Amino acid sequence: MTRYQTLAALLARRIEQGLYRSGERLPSVRILSAEHGVSISTVQQAYHLLEEKQMITPQPRSGYFVSLHKATPPLPAMTRPAQRPVEITQWDAVLDLLNSRQEEDILQMGSGMPDVTQPTLKPLWKIMARLAQKQDPRLLNYDTLQGLPALREQVARLAIDSGCQLSADDIVITTGCHEALSVSVRAVCQPGDIIAVESPAFHGTLQTLRGFGIRVIEIPTDSATGISLEALELAFEQWPVKAIIVVPNINNPLGFIMPEHRKKALLSLAQRYDAAIIEDDVYGELTWEYPRPRSLKSWDLDGRVLLCSSISKTLAPGLRVGWVAPGRYRDRVIHMKYIATGSTATQTQMAVAEFIRQGHYLPHLRRMRQIYQRNYETLNCWVRHYFPCGICVSRPAGGFLMWIELPEPFDAVRLNRTLSESRLQVAVGSLFSASGKYRNCLRLNFALPMDHRAEQALAVLGAAVEHAMAACAVDALPALSTE
Amino acid sequence: MTRYQTLAALLARRIEQGLYRSGERLPSVRILSAEHGVSISTVQQAYHLLEEKQMITPQPRSGYFVSLHKATPPLPAMTRPAQRPVEITQWDAVLDLLNSRQEEDILQMGSGMPDVTQPTLKPLWKIMARLAQKQDPRLLNYDTLQGLPALREQVARLAIDSGCQLSADDIVITTGCHEALSVSVRAVCQPGDIIAVESPAFHGTLQTLRGFGIRVIEIPTDSATGISLEALELAFEQWPVKAIIVVPNINNPLGFIMPEHRKKALLSLAQRYDAAIIEDDVYGELTWEYPRPRSLKSWDLDGRVLLCSSISKTLAPGLRVGWVAPGRYRDRVIHMKYIATGSTATQTQMAVAEFIRQGHYLPHLRRMRQIYQRNYETLNCWVRHYFPCGICVSRPAGGFLMWIELPEPFDAVRLNRTLSESRLQVAVGSLFSASGKYRNCLRLNFALPMDHRAEQALAVLGAAVEHAMAACAVDALPALSTE
Repeated sequence: MTRYQTLAALLARRIEQGLYRSGERLPSVRILSAEHGVSISTVQQAYHLLEEKQMITPQPRSGYFVSLHKATPPLPAMTRPAQRPVEITQWDAVLDLLNSRQEEDILQMGSGMPDVTQPTLKPLWKIMARLAQKQDPRLLNYDTLQGLPALREQVARLAIDSGCQLSADDIVITTGCHEALSVSVRAVCQPGDIIAVESPAFHGTLQTLRGFGIRVIEIPTDSATGISLEALELAFEQWPVKAIIVVPNINNPLGFIMPEHRKKALLSLAQRYDAAIIEDDVYGELTWEYPRPRSLKSWDLDGRVLLCSSISKTLAPGLRVGWVAPGRYRDRVIHMKYIATGSTATQTQMAVAEFIRQGHYLPHLRRMRQIYQRNYETLNCWVRHYFPCGICVSRPAGGFLMWIELPEPFDAVRLNRTLSESRLQVAVGSLFSASGKYRNCLRLNFALPMDHRAEQALAVLGAAVEHAMAACAVDALPALSTE
Repeated sequence: MTRYQTLAALLARRIEQGLYRSGERLPSVRILSAEHGVSISTVQQAYHLLEEKQMITPQPRSGYFVSLHKATPPLPAMTRPAQRPVEITQWDAVLDLLNSRQEEDILQMGSGMPDVTQPTLKPLWKIMARLAQKQDPRLLNYDTLQGLPALREQVARLAIDSGCQLSADDIVITTGCHEALSVSVRAVCQPGDIIAVESPAFHGTLQTLRGFGIRVIEIPTDSATGISLEALELAFEQWPVKAIIVVPNINNPLGFIMPEHRKKALLSLAQRYDAAIIEDDVYGELTWEYPRPRSLKSWDLDGRVLLCSSISKTLAPGLRVGWVAPGRYRDRVIHMKYIATGSTATQTQMAVAEFIRQGHYLPHLRRMRQIYQRNYETLNCWVRHYFPCGICVSRPAGGFLMWIELPEPFDAVRLNRTLSESRLQVAVGSLFSASGKYRNCLRLNFALPMDHRAEQALAVLGAAVEHAMAACAVDALPALSTE
């Protein structure tokens, strides 16, 4: 990013965070120039950019003001799922979402797909080409079950950034984070056991639990601070909860980072009730703050945290390379991996290991963070512009997912049916609940290029939401004819 | 192969099959030359080759005779496992086998690794390099859950050779055959269910069943004709057997092809007791006869057969590309795949699809069949030469695995401990039983190059076996001192 873009992003964030309120006057060009040590023209360019995004309005001879037309929508409130173990449903809806991937002309506005088109990925292609040119037969044969030592070393090195002291031997490579989660669940649970999850929670995790015959308790979750520790403790008191699955760094779908003191409290709660913690860190490298926040695993002294991650959100999901740092459950994780898929593909592991070793990973991450942050700001503007009032919107601290809550009885499943005429689909909220809650919510992806097509799609989506909400309001009126 | 090698292979096979018996005189050079339409010198070269292998002995002025020194060892008899559902053990032994893969200086004489060094694989490397050079971002992103249509089309086309009429939509791509088996088991069974398996059976299958909490009944199996249908029917009568897992074409580890009438009888038995059949066909393309034998799936009218296979034994296990044709269980298989690993790596699927589409697969298969067959003949000579009398040896009809049965109480686990000093390991027979039977058996791999190092290893192995058998014989003597 250039200087003026950086400054504009900073100011936009301050406006969003409410530091500058709707209608308030912004600092003068001269003051900002002095404060940030940049030229007058840089500040002017930054203000001009924000004006284009309709975030600020110039007033002759008075300077710039925060645009009045719409206030920042509030955050979704703490969720209130049923606080008892439930069987998981919603598979059909998940399958619909996955199948619609196949239809190339549908714009997937709610998928979990990252942007894989950036030039910082070029070295990865080169490495893959070079590996193929070398024709080393070892790359065609079975790898060891635990995974390529060269990759495990790099993963252990990366884990230092999240505060973890791990050796290559503490890592087990898996076929994507999906397998990491799946073998972790099976390493700590038996069918019939109960696991606590955040609510909303990633649909892949929920369906994995369903597949293993595990029941879940969905725990109320705050869209800024994460899982309710009070509700979790209550669950521990009432039920034999074997494990907790959480996404504490850039939660999917809510986008929060759990504050450090709450992470530590979660860990000691798990210790007190002797539960395992499966920590999904797949978006953790994509936080906008630097250095990245610590993982739960970084405070884990007795090996009860199974840290699961992958390069699927940061680099390339199509390579299917993930890992787990399984702590005390290492042997069982290796066993469960053996029975699921055996060893992981050798060549792709080697390509990823080389990409990290040669130093391409961190610059790539930096770029992706910047792109996603800029995309987020654009999407945020569009949502405010095209969506009706009365919605709640998450404020992700990284990643590329936004969660929007609409007033009940809005129905996102029905919305998707309407949208399919325009070849658009969102991820409906009910995918993220074991029991089909959150039909009034939807998830949007901002890894997509925020281009003209995306803006048009947002406009269509906003209009459809407005229309559906108006219809809901009519439905909610007392039925006069029957009185 | 040159002409004289082909002729030598044919003669060797006839000797092995007992067409020419030990000590018998072989046809004269002139007769053979006329019979096969080859030159006199070709026959002489062929005889010379067999002489080098110590299979035949020249006698001045009388011609060639089948060597007297050792007769063809008999086939192992029908196995006799316990005929009741058992819990599966042996994981530690499997892990030992897998871990020893990591130690590069150990010669794995019993692994399931194919030969991935042949020049017919060059086009695969080229395709992979070209795919990487094209830098198509779609190859870095998630594929659909069912797998790449281009690959599914090729798999459906290949299936015609085994008598199957399948469309691309009947196929689900998986991360290797291992995942194909694993999702198939989970698609048809619940924890606590009972599955019938051949005995001995592939350890990966057994451990998968163990991981899902499934009990098995090991069914007596003949090393020439396969699973005992009588014993299987008895099991059906006595227990609620949900499914059968079989490897009817080039069984692992016994190497047989089940005769067609027995395949059909197996299928109607499954129909009668409404059981699913999981058919592992991973070695099926490596039969020495051409065209390859039919799969059970080819007669499956009501969709109860889940045909599992991969390119792991024919092409390259390190790519982790497999598939299942799940019949009526398609939806459940897709669900189980989603919860295990999500989608399969995109680029490797594309590479395999292209390799087959461009016509490289069948010539490669032809070459591999020839190599393995030649290797088998060499290994067979060495086993007869270096092993003591009193053993039984399987007669594989393809693939690259040989099963050797030694007299009880010979212990292959103890043998492996001795062998580790010489940096050699075999696959011990007990891996292939749920309950640890077959400790007196071992599996050998003949995908390894049959070079000087291999012959030396065989010599060491033979001597160790002879030594251990002698010790067993002493152990088995009545303990005089205590009488």
